[in-house]
Amino acid sequence: MTTALPDPALDQLFRTARSHYHYDATPVTDADLRAIWDLAKMGPTSANMLPARIVWCTTDDAKRRLADCASSGNVDKILHAPVTAIVGTDLDFPDHLPTLFPPADARSWYVGNSALIETAGLRNSSLQAAYVILAARALGFDTGPMSGFDNDKVDAAFFAGTNIRSNLIMSLGHGDPAALHPRLPRPEFEAYNTVA
Amino acid sequence: MTTALPDPALDQLFRTARSHYHYDATPVTDADLRAIWDLAKMGPTSANMLPARIVWCTTDDAKRRLADCASSGNVDKILHAPVTAIVGTDLDFPDHLPTLFPPADARSWYVGNSALIETAGLRNSSLQAAYVILAARALGFDTGPMSGFDNDKVDAAFFAGTNIRSNLIMSLGHGDPAALHPRLPRPEFEAYNTVA
Repeated sequence: MTTALPDPALDQLFRTARSHYHYDATPVTDADLRAIWDLAKMGPTSANMLPARIVWCTTDDAKRRLADCASSGNVDKILHAPVTAIVGTDLDFPDHLPTLFPPADARSWYVGNSALIETAGLRNSSLQAAYVILAARALGFDTGPMSGFDNDKVDAAFFAGTNIRSNLIMSLGHGDPAALHPRLPRPEFEAYNTVA
Repeated sequence: MTTALPDPALDQLFRTARSHYHYDATPVTDADLRAIWDLAKMGPTSANMLPARIVWCTTDDAKRRLADCASSGNVDKILHAPVTAIVGTDLDFPDHLPTLFPPADARSWYVGNSALIETAGLRNSSLQAAYVILAARALGFDTGPMSGFDNDKVDAAFFAGTNIRSNLIMSLGHGDPAALHPRLPRPEFEAYNTVA
């Protein structure tokens, strides 16, 4: 039977891990991005739909184009991070299901139902964003997720001519612990959980 | 600087971890559920909104009530799992922001904008569902996420009189590896990623 990971691993993944918005100068390489994807892609999505499409902004030009779409408080966070990733949701994900989910005609569950496509796409793209956050942490990186940007502007700048819609963005690198604010509160089990 | 977790931990979290729908007889205790929550709650959400509300169905009665709302293929999966969790999204999450996010008046960013509340709620509740999946794996458990159920029926049966809306459900226990199907395909980095 599988057992719990040792405490230092649980700390690195959850307990002492923090969102970061200031990073040291250690570069993040393309090989690092591939390693993160190769872990995160293993996480489960409905009918293995894997709707997330990721643009990893690594160049000054790409970060500038993204920063131009962001709320003022996020501009410097984007420009000064080694990488900022845009996680989008491909609303054409049903067309990939014959390949991704061979056991059934899963495409037929979605085509023609745009409300279901949007809800399932957002749900599963967000699951994948969380897998990326935790895969990055598992590999020793820090992330800084952000929702403060103009989705339409990002879609026009990075996803023109596609049915990909931006979901969230996140910076990536090796965080500077000295720049952290105190951790925000987390509720006890009773507050948000029920055992039935 | 933080370093990568050892390979057996990466395997347990991502590489060899699988969604499970058949479990052995090992019980899942209330203390286990608390341990999973105490890890998962540490994951990041926008403005620390933590919109997920979880009902852990542990009794035969609760599992039966949930199974009555599920698609036919999921009924036995729910009834025979030690626990099946309902992850809901509390659309009243803005009212908790003065407590959860003291640095700013984050409540004012959401109140009166029901489209934003629904999108941000689904996005962040889904992030939290992924944190639960990976927290469970980190603690040695397996999960079986499912979307095949009637959301309105689940909301009426478990969230009546609230603004909580069901997002996804997931079984929980110690999976039986002998019951697994072959793993579904996962795309290479180039298929769904761009470096800009």
